[in-house]
Amino acid sequence: MVTKVKSLNEECGVFGVWGIPDAARLSYFGLHSLQHRGQDGAGIVASNKGKLKGHRDLGLLTDVFKDDRQFDCLKGEAAIGHVRYNTAGSNGIQNIQPFQFEFHDEELALAHNGNLINATTLREQLEDEGAIFHSNSDTEILVHLIRRSERETLIERVKESLNKVKGAFAYLILTPNEMIAALDPNGFRPLSIGQMSNGAYVLASETCALDVVGAEFIRSLEPGEIVTVNDDGYQIEKYTEDTMMSICSMEYIYFARPDSDIAGVNVHTARKTMGRTLAEEAPTAADIVIGVPNSSLSAGSGYAEKSGIPYEMGLVKNQYIARTFIQPTQELRELGVRMKLSAVRGVVKGKKVVMVDDSIVRGTTSKRIVQLLRDAGATEVHVRISSPPLRFPSFYGIDIQNRHELIAADHSVEEVREIIGADSLVFLSVAGTVDSIGLNFDAPYGGLCMAYFTGDYPTPLYDYEADYLKSLEKEITVQRDEES
Amino acid sequence: MVTKVKSLNEECGVFGVWGIPDAARLSYFGLHSLQHRGQDGAGIVASNKGKLKGHRDLGLLTDVFKDDRQFDCLKGEAAIGHVRYNTAGSNGIQNIQPFQFEFHDEELALAHNGNLINATTLREQLEDEGAIFHSNSDTEILVHLIRRSERETLIERVKESLNKVKGAFAYLILTPNEMIAALDPNGFRPLSIGQMSNGAYVLASETCALDVVGAEFIRSLEPGEIVTVNDDGYQIEKYTEDTMMSICSMEYIYFARPDSDIAGVNVHTARKTMGRTLAEEAPTAADIVIGVPNSSLSAGSGYAEKSGIPYEMGLVKNQYIARTFIQPTQELRELGVRMKLSAVRGVVKGKKVVMVDDSIVRGTTSKRIVQLLRDAGATEVHVRISSPPLRFPSFYGIDIQNRHELIAADHSVEEVREIIGADSLVFLSVAGTVDSIGLNFDAPYGGLCMAYFTGDYPTPLYDYEADYLKSLEKEITVQRDEES
Amino acid sequence: MVTKVKSLNEECGVFGVWGIPDAARLSYFGLHSLQHRGQDGAGIVASNKGKLKGHRDLGLLTDVFKDDRQFDCLKGEAAIGHVRYNTAGSNGIQNIQPFQFEFHDEELALAHNGNLINATTLREQLEDEGAIFHSNSDTEILVHLIRRSERETLIERVKESLNKVKGAFAYLILTPNEMIAALDPNGFRPLSIGQMSNGAYVLASETCALDVVGAEFIRSLEPGEIVTVNDDGYQIEKYTEDTMMSICSMEYIYFARPDSDIAGVNVHTARKTMGRTLAEEAPTAADIVIGVPNSSLSAGSGYAEKSGIPYEMGLVKNQYIARTFIQPTQELRELGVRMKLSAVRGVVKGKKVVMVDDSIVRGTTSKRIVQLLRDAGATEVHVRISSPPLRFPSFYGIDIQNRHELIAADHSVEEVREIIGADSLVFLSVAGTVDSIGLNFDAPYGGLCMAYFTGDYPTPLYDYEADYLKSLEKEITVQRDEES
Amino acid sequence: MVTKVKSLNEECGVFGVWGIPDAARLSYFGLHSLQHRGQDGAGIVASNKGKLKGHRDLGLLTDVFKDDRQFDCLKGEAAIGHVRYNTAGSNGIQNIQPFQFEFHDEELALAHNGNLINATTLREQLEDEGAIFHSNSDTEILVHLIRRSERETLIERVKESLNKVKGAFAYLILTPNEMIAALDPNGFRPLSIGQMSNGAYVLASETCALDVVGAEFIRSLEPGEIVTVNDDGYQIEKYTEDTMMSICSMEYIYFARPDSDIAGVNVHTARKTMGRTLAEEAPTAADIVIGVPNSSLSAGSGYAEKSGIPYEMGLVKNQYIARTFIQPTQELRELGVRMKLSAVRGVVKGKKVVMVDDSIVRGTTSKRIVQLLRDAGATEVHVRISSPPLRFPSFYGIDIQNRHELIAADHSVEEVREIIGADSLVFLSVAGTVDSIGLNFDAPYGGLCMAYFTGDYPTPLYDYEADYLKSLEKEITVQRDEES
Repeated sequence: MVTKVKSLNEECGVFGVWGIPDAARLSYFGLHSLQHRGQDGAGIVASNKGKLKGHRDLGLLTDVFKDDRQFDCLKGEAAIGHVRYNTAGSNGIQNIQPFQFEFHDEELALAHNGNLINATTLREQLEDEGAIFHSNSDTEILVHLIRRSERETLIERVKESLNKVKGAFAYLILTPNEMIAALDPNGFRPLSIGQMSNGAYVLASETCALDVVGAEFIRSLEPGEIVTVNDDGYQIEKYTEDTMMSICSMEYIYFARPDSDIAGVNVHTARKTMGRTLAEEAPTAADIVIGVPNSSLSAGSGYAEKSGIPYEMGLVKNQYIARTFIQPTQELRELGVRMKLSAVRGVVKGKKVVMVDDSIVRGTTSKRIVQLLRDAGATEVHVRISSPPLRFPSFYGIDIQNRHELIAADHSVEEVREIIGADSLVFLSVAGTVDSIGLNFDAPYGGLCMAYFTGDYPTPLYDYEADYLKSLEKEITVQRDEES
Repeated sequence: MVTKVKSLNEECGVFGVWGIPDAARLSYFGLHSLQHRGQDGAGIVASNKGKLKGHRDLGLLTDVFKDDRQFDCLKGEAAIGHVRYNTAGSNGIQNIQPFQFEFHDEELALAHNGNLINATTLREQLEDEGAIFHSNSDTEILVHLIRRSERETLIERVKESLNKVKGAFAYLILTPNEMIAALDPNGFRPLSIGQMSNGAYVLASETCALDVVGAEFIRSLEPGEIVTVNDDGYQIEKYTEDTMMSICSMEYIYFARPDSDIAGVNVHTARKTMGRTLAEEAPTAADIVIGVPNSSLSAGSGYAEKSGIPYEMGLVKNQYIARTFIQPTQELRELGVRMKLSAVRGVVKGKKVVMVDDSIVRGTTSKRIVQLLRDAGATEVHVRISSPPLRFPSFYGIDIQNRHELIAADHSVEEVREIIGADSLVFLSVAGTVDSIGLNFDAPYGGLCMAYFTGDYPTPLYDYEADYLKSLEKEITVQRDEES
Repeated sequence: MVTKVKSLNEECGVFGVWGIPDAARLSYFGLHSLQHRGQDGAGIVASNKGKLKGHRDLGLLTDVFKDDRQFDCLKGEAAIGHVRYNTAGSNGIQNIQPFQFEFHDEELALAHNGNLINATTLREQLEDEGAIFHSNSDTEILVHLIRRSERETLIERVKESLNKVKGAFAYLILTPNEMIAALDPNGFRPLSIGQMSNGAYVLASETCALDVVGAEFIRSLEPGEIVTVNDDGYQIEKYTEDTMMSICSMEYIYFARPDSDIAGVNVHTARKTMGRTLAEEAPTAADIVIGVPNSSLSAGSGYAEKSGIPYEMGLVKNQYIARTFIQPTQELRELGVRMKLSAVRGVVKGKKVVMVDDSIVRGTTSKRIVQLLRDAGATEVHVRISSPPLRFPSFYGIDIQNRHELIAADHSVEEVREIIGADSLVFLSVAGTVDSIGLNFDAPYGGLCMAYFTGDYPTPLYDYEADYLKSLEKEITVQRDEES
Repeated sequence: MVTKVKSLNEECGVFGVWGIPDAARLSYFGLHSLQHRGQDGAGIVASNKGKLKGHRDLGLLTDVFKDDRQFDCLKGEAAIGHVRYNTAGSNGIQNIQPFQFEFHDEELALAHNGNLINATTLREQLEDEGAIFHSNSDTEILVHLIRRSERETLIERVKESLNKVKGAFAYLILTPNEMIAALDPNGFRPLSIGQMSNGAYVLASETCALDVVGAEFIRSLEPGEIVTVNDDGYQIEKYTEDTMMSICSMEYIYFARPDSDIAGVNVHTARKTMGRTLAEEAPTAADIVIGVPNSSLSAGSGYAEKSGIPYEMGLVKNQYIARTFIQPTQELRELGVRMKLSAVRGVVKGKKVVMVDDSIVRGTTSKRIVQLLRDAGATEVHVRISSPPLRFPSFYGIDIQNRHELIAADHSVEEVREIIGADSLVFLSVAGTVDSIGLNFDAPYGGLCMAYFTGDYPTPLYDYEADYLKSLEKEITVQRDEES
């Protein structure tokens, strides 16, 4: 059941538009700006003259929509789309969204960003009542609930169903008559609404997608909200009052694009501030600061600015994505890292380096980058991480569900430093992280979900409770061994 | 004959290795770090037990070598490889290198980075003597010359042939018995030799490829040199004494990877210095400095450092390559730029911006980026270019052979400023460029080819002479119109 | 709703095996011999260590299983497979069988040959009860019924469900514990059971598949039977007593392979006898007999033998399948027929020809072949059809659901003769057909379904009743016009 | 150098047309009817407005021309095409014809059916004079000769060159100004000229291609002829007077389509007559005659007719081409034959069978078919071959260049019978074969090349002389062993 992950992975991005000709092509542009949220599959469903038509496949958006012909059957003025990150065991084409359903009395398409935490329970209940699932995805559950609801209108059936699913979700639903979006009661995942100059409404996981298609930002969806868009405009309701803001802090730290704003805070700015705070919390005597490209360039420059140490481009990322399959011998395997990232010898040689990165998951990558810098002649490598140690699994849509994949779960900071071979290692504090992002919601951590660092899960864990407790036991054993 | 180009394009990169098991796979790693030099085709030829075997195809390296099976037939301890940029009319698979030739008395493979300027003349002469060409590539010419040479050894035949081709070239030749490399008498293109820890020799267009495969840099090839590598080691000779260093300045300005060293100068450092010199030559009252990603980040940070104005990440490049085919309407076409590049509103809004870019070719891209920054709220946009205005065509391997594609050829700087919509526009001076790169060869411009800026071509133009003169006439007309 | 068909098309073939290593590969061989029953999609599901794994895709079997790697995940000693013919509007990959279902409490795969006639009604009922269908295929219905059955064992649930579906079906079900097959109460489609020398049991649509894999024929499944195969052997039960043999006569006339036996009668022999009977019913003064390849070679040789007129190869079928897409002009369109079929001028020229074909659907093909023979110099062309005129639609798995596609539905034999341009035209009589095939079941027509010729449907028509009656009305109008 | 072949293989077919719009599409239809002459590659080159454009690739014609878009660049009123059979070591895309050549002073395309026997000598000579070959194909030689000829017109240069190449060839050349075809001095390969109703001229390897495109047969090209087609019509000349008709007997026996006429003799009729003669030479007491599909159906029916024994369809060929890759175990390997060919148990069981086949190459296939018939219940299997034993290699375009691949070269007829497991085995006599085909040219064997049976090669063997003599030595040894 446990698969090894090498980096943190977001689970999906969604985009929808209502009210503009060629809606599917516009969605392609919007989804392209969300590609960083999922690279394993993509799809678009368009609504035209009362019928839904879709195209989806495995791969990058540009692989799925290889040429213009794919849009020939995707006409119409409304569309929703999805980019997907595959979690373990879910890599079949039947899991690529948006899902499409054609009943004798209605049609609908559904896209989902997030992760349900009572999916196993719901699925078993539904199967026991005769339901047949065709994907491994928890996304499908919502449709079964909607179809089994006995309320009168679709919107009422959706609202009833939303109260049964638990966890993190930003849903997009398209029917020939309307586009519906809904956010979970904690607002774990971002979802914004915007408007095009022609009046069309756009929904997207990140505001960068609004910018790309030229839509003006209206507002973010709030926890427990459902929005209905149709030819009469949009209308926002609450489907539950039992809400508490807990937006995923990893969106700011790692996932989201720097040009996106989340809950009113620009992501690049948040990262730069985290870098500045880190410089205050962990000053270092060094010659240059280097941010690990691409996600830590903002934090790196913040650190440099605050510390007064010059910021240098000491690491270069190859812009061409390398396959790692060609690695038959150990010798060639070592080359894999260098294919992706190179140290600039002319910059690094003879220097004491502060290497700023946004997080450490398993430690493997950090270890390799430290070595890369040493090979290029760095005399000292001081690693500064612009977030706290990752110590607890995520159940809300980040692909870490086993805490023993997290090096900081089972090791002290000093142990981690030794493993990665750094001269020193400091993580940003929890308070420093929260303050740097600077949300002001009336909720713990100002409205951030910090569970990966603190274990403070903002919801019950439902299906994951047992697994989680079991993993803790093992931790205790490990810690006892350390103490003795 | 004239095709429109949207950006400057390098023509190809080469990589070769002699003396290590699995030489083809090693070449894959090396070529991957040279992928920025050509994305239209790739190939590797390996030598095993007296026979050459090759695989080549259109596309990125990772498309051509999709899985490990492609290497099954590429065994052996020596290999050469090539990544290709297609010039107009040369996009067939028959043009993908390395070319392979099997004669009844010898076998050889050939890869070429550069552009011959007497190719048309030579090809017609050869055809009149019965030669049959199978590609549109000027690369093939060398093999016809080699085969028609009556000298005794291959190396002597190669040397004779090298004295007949004119222009820019870095050749790699592989036979079952040796690997040969040669550089043109002006050293237009970089070519370095390095050594692996097991003693194997490596030849590569850029030193970043040596780093990636873990080879130690020995030295750059010099103008007019030919190197022979075989099981006895390597030997360097001059095939001509009529040489003069004129290394292409665009390698420093735009083409090469920042982590490469060319003629002993690190590319990132050269760019940063150009940025610093630009700040001295053209100081600006502004709030932030933004480098256009990715090639102008070094120059941007140099400008910021020298000027004291904070460097900010105001532009974000989408790391996923977008296709531009999906652009049926004018409205959607405009979205194309935004797919590739986004302005960070939170950073740019309300700011006076210095936008640093490395060059302006047609002006179209600059105009769009300026607009992007203004749309994101920049109050002023001052464009600073870290090289002089491009005013003359290149015949040495950059894909600009018609000067009327160059906006600065027919327009004054003030006109260009107006076209791109900047508040101010300053280019780095020729002297500033030469000084910043800082070569010290006993040659004009310290050994740099500055022809694209000055018209000082370091060689006769041969087949291009007439075209060039004709293009000048037109320029004179344009200038007269301006004067009147 | 009505799509035009150019020929009669079978809907699918099934193959299953229990108890032999590499069961999936064996199924590949078996399915290959059933490829004539469906060329639009293929799939195999194998059972290994308590889990089902499958591979399926659009296209011919050899396209779906392109190389040996496809079998890497299909290990195990049991497998079922399917070749599919796409009916209109059902051409998506989600319709390719065998379908696979994974529930929290059981797993099963399902393949289906046939057509349900109460599918629309059942599907609407199930959807109203909350069921979600993921394909357009009527096959999926059975699984919903099975999952909603409250009986205890799978076999009991299957039996209950079989009593709810109406029409033509030969089902194959695979679970990790057993393989189940069932035939409809009329035995419309053939399904045979055989045994390999190692004891493994094989189920296949036609006996030719048993021969190909080297299995010995045990017996045909009879109407209303269900067979369960597991490690203890096989067991046959009746799930209903309300049965009446009505095996599809088109299996003998056109669909099945000549080397298959159906209900104990060899298909080639049946066809040859039909040809002989036709010669008795419709003797002709002619020089040569020509069977239309490939399906009418048997009937042709029977006619020749009985009539004493020499049988000649006057028509040659191109063994390479041609695409018909390349037909931009009317002139080239005419070439399409000739690509598939050529007349042998040396054989036909100056001859009075008897052209024997198995059936006439729309008349278009017959017209073209007659013309082909005349172009090649035939002085007379007498068409003899070894089955009666097709006048009624099929609802049991042949792709003719609209009688107005059938030329003989709206035209007299003399009219058809004139349309196809023959010198004479005779169809085999209904009695002649029944006698030639020679079944002896205690049922109308000896146990054959002759509905396409007579309108005597052996079951109620359920969902198709209204459509059918409506189509008859139109016929009456047509006939009246003829009479007046 | 020697590769094993499993069956006789023709080397290629050619088709050309001059003077009709959409010439490339017409060529597609023509080539499709020649697909049996080569299945490994296909291509078409069209001439439009003074330029040649081509498309070619590995695979069947329908794979190479997958959809209509491939014809977008193949406009114009003239075209030539080629279907290719790969001989050993020549399977690269660079060998797919028609070859295209663009010189600074002319353009031409070339397609070739046949095999040169002085290719190695010519190629070495040309290479020593500086020529570079880009394919392994002997076809390329002609172009080198043409380009090196110093005669004035293209037609004169072609004629001079034709006198230098030796062996079997039917060439088609296309330039923007004319289409040229030429046949070798022995007329080994068929080549016919026809005319469309609009006046366009067509050239094709077989007359079936003329029929398919609706062209009227004008006449066959004769040995040593060259025909030039241009807008003024066609003109036939002799390029040599040193000719002697030796048309390949295997065209009649096995290769050509039954509906083609070669040298005025219909292929089906020739085969049927061979079957009749065989019945006279080798009468048999048996119940039924079975021809091995598809090539021996004509001979089989001739045998049946003459002998009075009923002809039956005892073997059925699967019309879907099977891949043979899926054969991991010996058990499954045996299934491979059955996938391609099935015995009809209902026909064969309990019968004494005459199995008529056209030839025996290695004996493997015959052995398997005999076994197939016995497995299906045949009590006796008498094999009758409608041609003499193959005992000598072919150097004129059939893929047998090593006589030890031929079972009859090293074994007596009785030994072959034993190996294939037949109850009796008789081959048609040389005289019977020649008489049945019935040519009347003033040349040995009436103008047939019977070398594969008799060793009477109609030309010197040039490059193959030594190999041939060496192979004979071995034969002598074998025969001595037999004698002792």
